[in-house]
Amino acid sequence: MEGLDDKLILNVGGMRHETYISTVRAFPGTRLYKLTEPPPPGSPAAQGPPVREFFFDRNPELFSYVLGYYRTRQLHCPNDVCRDVLEEELAYWGLAEAPLAPCCWLKLSGRETRTQDFLSWEACENAHLDERLLLNPMEGQGLRNAWKPWLWVLLDQPQSSLGAKCLSLISTLFAVCALVIFFQETEVQLDYFSANFTPMGHGAGVGGNQQQQQQQQNNGLVYRRAPHLLYLELLCALWFGTELFARAISCPDKVRFLCSPLNLADIFCLFPVLVELVVGDKAERQPRLSLTLGAIRSLYVLKLVRLLGFLEKSLALRVLVHTLHSSWKEVCAFLLIWVAEILFFGSLFLYGELLGMSTPGQSELHFGDIFTCLWWTVITLTTVGYGDIYPLSAMGQLTAAVTATVGMCTGVLLVPVLLVRFQRYYAVALARQKLRPSGIL
Amino acid sequence: MEGLDDKLILNVGGMRHETYISTVRAFPGTRLYKLTEPPPPGSPAAQGPPVREFFFDRNPELFSYVLGYYRTRQLHCPNDVCRDVLEEELAYWGLAEAPLAPCCWLKLSGRETRTQDFLSWEACENAHLDERLLLNPMEGQGLRNAWKPWLWVLLDQPQSSLGAKCLSLISTLFAVCALVIFFQETEVQLDYFSANFTPMGHGAGVGGNQQQQQQQQNNGLVYRRAPHLLYLELLCALWFGTELFARAISCPDKVRFLCSPLNLADIFCLFPVLVELVVGDKAERQPRLSLTLGAIRSLYVLKLVRLLGFLEKSLALRVLVHTLHSSWKEVCAFLLIWVAEILFFGSLFLYGELLGMSTPGQSELHFGDIFTCLWWTVITLTTVGYGDIYPLSAMGQLTAAVTATVGMCTGVLLVPVLLVRFQRYYAVALARQKLRPSGIL
Amino acid sequence: MEGLDDKLILNVGGMRHETYISTVRAFPGTRLYKLTEPPPPGSPAAQGPPVREFFFDRNPELFSYVLGYYRTRQLHCPNDVCRDVLEEELAYWGLAEAPLAPCCWLKLSGRETRTQDFLSWEACENAHLDERLLLNPMEGQGLRNAWKPWLWVLLDQPQSSLGAKCLSLISTLFAVCALVIFFQETEVQLDYFSANFTPMGHGAGVGGNQQQQQQQQNNGLVYRRAPHLLYLELLCALWFGTELFARAISCPDKVRFLCSPLNLADIFCLFPVLVELVVGDKAERQPRLSLTLGAIRSLYVLKLVRLLGFLEKSLALRVLVHTLHSSWKEVCAFLLIWVAEILFFGSLFLYGELLGMSTPGQSELHFGDIFTCLWWTVITLTTVGYGDIYPLSAMGQLTAAVTATVGMCTGVLLVPVLLVRFQRYYAVALARQKLRPSGIL
Amino acid sequence: MEGLDDKLILNVGGMRHETYISTVRAFPGTRLYKLTEPPPPGSPAAQGPPVREFFFDRNPELFSYVLGYYRTRQLHCPNDVCRDVLEEELAYWGLAEAPLAPCCWLKLSGRETRTQDFLSWEACENAHLDERLLLNPMEGQGLRNAWKPWLWVLLDQPQSSLGAKCLSLISTLFAVCALVIFFQETEVQLDYFSANFTPMGHGAGVGGNQQQQQQQQNNGLVYRRAPHLLYLELLCALWFGTELFARAISCPDKVRFLCSPLNLADIFCLFPVLVELVVGDKAERQPRLSLTLGAIRSLYVLKLVRLLGFLEKSLALRVLVHTLHSSWKEVCAFLLIWVAEILFFGSLFLYGELLGMSTPGQSELHFGDIFTCLWWTVITLTTVGYGDIYPLSAMGQLTAAVTATVGMCTGVLLVPVLLVRFQRYYAVALARQKLRPSGIL
Repeated sequence: MEGLDDKLILNVGGMRHETYISTVRAFPGTRLYKLTEPPPPGSPAAQGPPVREFFFDRNPELFSYVLGYYRTRQLHCPNDVCRDVLEEELAYWGLAEAPLAPCCWLKLSGRETRTQDFLSWEACENAHLDERLLLNPMEGQGLRNAWKPWLWVLLDQPQSSLGAKCLSLISTLFAVCALVIFFQETEVQLDYFSANFTPMGHGAGVGGNQQQQQQQQNNGLVYRRAPHLLYLELLCALWFGTELFARAISCPDKVRFLCSPLNLADIFCLFPVLVELVVGDKAERQPRLSLTLGAIRSLYVLKLVRLLGFLEKSLALRVLVHTLHSSWKEVCAFLLIWVAEILFFGSLFLYGELLGMSTPGQSELHFGDIFTCLWWTVITLTTVGYGDIYPLSAMGQLTAAVTATVGMCTGVLLVPVLLVRFQRYYAVALARQKLRPSGIL
Repeated sequence: MEGLDDKLILNVGGMRHETYISTVRAFPGTRLYKLTEPPPPGSPAAQGPPVREFFFDRNPELFSYVLGYYRTRQLHCPNDVCRDVLEEELAYWGLAEAPLAPCCWLKLSGRETRTQDFLSWEACENAHLDERLLLNPMEGQGLRNAWKPWLWVLLDQPQSSLGAKCLSLISTLFAVCALVIFFQETEVQLDYFSANFTPMGHGAGVGGNQQQQQQQQNNGLVYRRAPHLLYLELLCALWFGTELFARAISCPDKVRFLCSPLNLADIFCLFPVLVELVVGDKAERQPRLSLTLGAIRSLYVLKLVRLLGFLEKSLALRVLVHTLHSSWKEVCAFLLIWVAEILFFGSLFLYGELLGMSTPGQSELHFGDIFTCLWWTVITLTTVGYGDIYPLSAMGQLTAAVTATVGMCTGVLLVPVLLVRFQRYYAVALARQKLRPSGIL
Repeated sequence: MEGLDDKLILNVGGMRHETYISTVRAFPGTRLYKLTEPPPPGSPAAQGPPVREFFFDRNPELFSYVLGYYRTRQLHCPNDVCRDVLEEELAYWGLAEAPLAPCCWLKLSGRETRTQDFLSWEACENAHLDERLLLNPMEGQGLRNAWKPWLWVLLDQPQSSLGAKCLSLISTLFAVCALVIFFQETEVQLDYFSANFTPMGHGAGVGGNQQQQQQQQNNGLVYRRAPHLLYLELLCALWFGTELFARAISCPDKVRFLCSPLNLADIFCLFPVLVELVVGDKAERQPRLSLTLGAIRSLYVLKLVRLLGFLEKSLALRVLVHTLHSSWKEVCAFLLIWVAEILFFGSLFLYGELLGMSTPGQSELHFGDIFTCLWWTVITLTTVGYGDIYPLSAMGQLTAAVTATVGMCTGVLLVPVLLVRFQRYYAVALARQKLRPSGIL
Repeated sequence: MEGLDDKLILNVGGMRHETYISTVRAFPGTRLYKLTEPPPPGSPAAQGPPVREFFFDRNPELFSYVLGYYRTRQLHCPNDVCRDVLEEELAYWGLAEAPLAPCCWLKLSGRETRTQDFLSWEACENAHLDERLLLNPMEGQGLRNAWKPWLWVLLDQPQSSLGAKCLSLISTLFAVCALVIFFQETEVQLDYFSANFTPMGHGAGVGGNQQQQQQQQNNGLVYRRAPHLLYLELLCALWFGTELFARAISCPDKVRFLCSPLNLADIFCLFPVLVELVVGDKAERQPRLSLTLGAIRSLYVLKLVRLLGFLEKSLALRVLVHTLHSSWKEVCAFLLIWVAEILFFGSLFLYGELLGMSTPGQSELHFGDIFTCLWWTVITLTTVGYGDIYPLSAMGQLTAAVTATVGMCTGVLLVPVLLVRFQRYYAVALARQKLRPSGIL
């Protein structure tokens, strides 16, 4: 059958591809193969001269890769093809089962992944955006419902309007004020505790007993909080409570509101001052309670993080937060590995020191329990190295050297995992930022 | 209507695309759709046979994507298209509103971003370049104005000529000389202070009083600066002042000159020696003043940074500086987070230790105020860990472990943010460096 | 010969390329050159007019690069060509020896490398996958063989079924239990050792001798392990042994099973409790033995790493492990450099301090042998810096400054090596994850 | 003139591009414009009908971008074009001056840079390869010259043959032996110095004088090196000297040989044992000399680095070394910045502490000169933090906090600079490794 008239002309979308019939007969059952089958005898097509030119209304570029598959038995694809397009074309030509050459797999997957990243980022950003756009569609529903989104945007988005900026500034001032009060109070508590506790341990002398009692009475007076500080803090707490209440009732999604760690911190912030008002003077006799209240007060610092709202436009930081969010699995795994490292090297250090010290030379233990060893391990793995505990025996030093080297490398291993994800999300975040306003999306 | 004569031939820039009329009728209102509308009866075109071939003087490659949109209802675009070109083509074909498939968004945005980076870098570099090229256009304006840019380039760009190199070398020698004088003087001051202050605290003995007075008189003598050092420093200051003055009057942009931190440092550098000349011997009786003057003198070190001028050709470093400049938002945010971490973990550590120590066992406080806790937090977050303060109770150790781990990770988080920007700017900086001399730009 | 009829028409796969005969005559001996040779006189082709149009059933896109080689004498290639395709085409046109232009080398190599990475990752993943798929083909072979893979999958892949999850949970509980027992025991041992050893060093007083003997007798009693702890640990060991035995006999590849460090740890874990049962009370009189057993017990912690099995789906972590595996050469080299750094800076520090201290001023040595110096070097290179040893002389401080700077940079140098490999493997791992389920591969 | 016959057919390399004459007339003076100029009256072309079809034997793909320039007045280029090709085409069409659109600059530069990186890496690798290939071309020159490269390859490339491997192994054994001797000797020296120096400071008692003199005499005996160690070291030095001599005379490039730091270390290594042989027993009376000799001996460690020769095939490490080599400018700049940071923060710390301490409260200086401050600064910037010196006043602590933060960031800033270069060189190194053996290059 080979000859001049074996040439087949395939006009695909206007581009004329020419090939031999023998080439096309490489894969039976496909659409191109069927073209070369002789018409069933008796059909009208069987009479005339065999047709040699066919027209298909398909993508001409991709067809040249399809034809390449017939010629070389390897299916490649262009660099910029999208997966949907490729699959649709292959299905049309009856090559849905054809295996793509390995060198072309990555061309497809890169694009795929980026699309997925894009949708993930889009979902994350829209959650914020929707709240911001909430305002408009509600306007028609009367005054009763319209104030809610208005209040929400006013309180939650410092960038949205002048009023919101002022409110946010006032809140920040109150937060700074609360922090100053908190720091003032730590001074008072520290004085109280250093006065009350030091004697217990040391002043076990003879005449010290009487002196100590007197001191404690003085301290009781010392610890009484300056009332103006308490009232000032109450004022701050009132403002914070009002703001929190307003945000809570105007929030469109109560569940997400309660799950946000910053909001939870805001709620807990209100307790200390309330408890102190209720308990009153009794707090002075319950040092643990007042200390716990103080520890809760340190959540005031988190209010400062709201200051980031002024800077929140920074794309890189939002992407960083999204990266950490979406790689919670890796973060969990790293925490687990971190804990396992601490336990393992802590135990090794304990026995290394004990084995090394059982030689007669040095014989004073500088740690009393395994928790001190774990503490040492954390401080060594993070390369802080206070020097309160350090190995004295050669075996302990060997363990410590390995621990320190492992600790140095653990930090380095975090970099690639974070970086690769960050790069991907940052690319799509940039794309979204550029294309959204120009209406291409 | 379907049949052989439904085939439509679209000759776009010489490339013949063929398709069915039914395909083209997918999107009414577009330019292609209008081709298939029957001519209004009575018009001359309605008489003859329907035209089946049309010519358009447009980009043929992009048209195949446009036609693909009609065929598959998905608009893709090639990898290397530029956004302007794509938008113009889509507008021409009446598809300006057509949504691009998600897999192709990133193709467009990548290029867009890079162009923006390029312009940002270009602006930064041209600011430098303009000064260097300032010299030529001025030549026609007579001698009075021509010396300004000539002097500026001589003083500001050590690489520009042999004279500039010599001047820069002399300045560097003066800076080294000033530094040596400065270090000499610290020795004198340290002797003075260690002699004057140590006795106050300790030598509270009986006969110590007389000895101390004598010592202080001696110290008064000791502290008197060696006059030749003062005169040498005055010489250096004179050189620096002359140079600064010359640069100030020849600078083409006074505002930017004053805002540069290196120039501000140069100005402040001049004060100490002047003040000492004015105050004279009285400085010895005002230790705070002489210490403050010494602290200002440490700005002499910044003059050494000008040595970088010899190395300034390094592209990577200029890009690094530009990266830090252009990501000031992220740097601010990181500083804010850093401060918040210090405040938060400092408070936690305080209360953790207090709560842990209120158990009877250990009971000596090793810090007196919250600022010591904050200091401890900085030293732990940066993993320096001097060991002057470290937690003694189990709860304090837990807080410290978390603090150290967070500190280790904070440094790691900085890497991706910086790296992604650096990579982008470095790519465009390289492009500019390669293409500028060859005249393509 | 130049003239109008010099035009040659090359119809390659339907795309008509036209060129001059003189162009094609650039490279004698190639297939295109031969077309232009006059036919041997006497052959039938020599009679008729010279043929000017030829048809080739080859890739038309690549042919335009081939023709470009004739026109410009530089062989380029498109961005998305695969190496096999290019080589096949060049061989067909007789240009197998043609040198590719330098600007196009990297286009080819990038793809090549990625394919290789893909196969490496594929092999690594299939090793896991095969085990998981082992179950099915065996089913026909009767009950005797079918339980092996069933048991293996049950024990080794916590994600595979509900039963496997329960078993894994029980194992984890036993591991936690063993850890708690282990920690309990360290307390007992620490008490024993601190009681036994501290007196040896200090209590060398007069009446201390009698007291000490009595104490040691007490300690002998103290160290006796609480029997219920021993029995509980025996129970854990029984469970671990049974599990290990079941995994060992059901494992499809015994050699790989034995080489896995986690399995080796499992085997060693069983020894301590067995040895203690055998030795019985004698262990109390052999402190070194009981300490060694304790050190081996710290392998219990590694059982916690199996918890990662619950998280093992994280792609990034599997890629990280594969990266470390496949870059063992670099890890070895870094370890060697690390050891060399320790030895080198340790020796320098020793002599730096000795040289610096031979000046009369300070003259107390704070280290007794070179191993203490090496220990100092490790602690400085990792930037831990306990502060138990630090240089006192100026020369020692200079050495320490260089050591610390080198240590800081060594960690940074690890980043790029790891990162580049991680990025490559992560890209192919993503590709495999996306494409495998959709059947394209 | 507009009409049907305005259509111009440009057959470029077989691809027919069609456009309007008005389009082509956009840029006068270019080759396409000239086609449309009416032929000078009287020429033969002016008689016949105007020619409307032209043939050019050029690249058809690039011509479509050229035509796009006429249509849209923006010159773009495809993604995969090489710069040479583009410039040649533009020159042919008379558009050499045409400005490329900004979005396409980076397409060109990326490729350019990679080519340059490739040549830089090629040069670096060829330097090694040439030596390895040196052997063959020399063979014809007779025996007298042939042994040189043979010896060189034998000694310098442990991987080249079995003999080279054995030699390298023997050298390594000698190096380990020399190290062991060196460590043995440090013990002796440390004993000598601790015995000789400690008494000077402390034993100022009454009866101590006599005892001390006796001790020193003993020490004089103690320090005498064990003679067998000296002879063993001499043996090692003989081997090292022979090897070095053989390598020196067989080296093809003496200058590069002398500049290599490893070879310089080899030369210096030989001195200590020779000097000791010459000086003999007098060394014992010159402690500084023996210490200096010991410090030089620590270069023995560098011989271990030759062990890397066994691992040298690792591509990543060679690229890392090349990266550091080729970014010496950045390394210098970082060192300069590092020194400036140390000087600046050291001075600030000094005055911060002095200013903070001039308050009456605490008044003991813990540093005696500015060099101690600089030492503190290095230890803080590298986050080692021994804790021998730390700030006591609030102002000093503030300075220290800033110093520690800056130190933490300085390490991070190194990462992007190194990484970007490493990535580029690694890509080209991979390309070279893949393509070289397959003969494409």
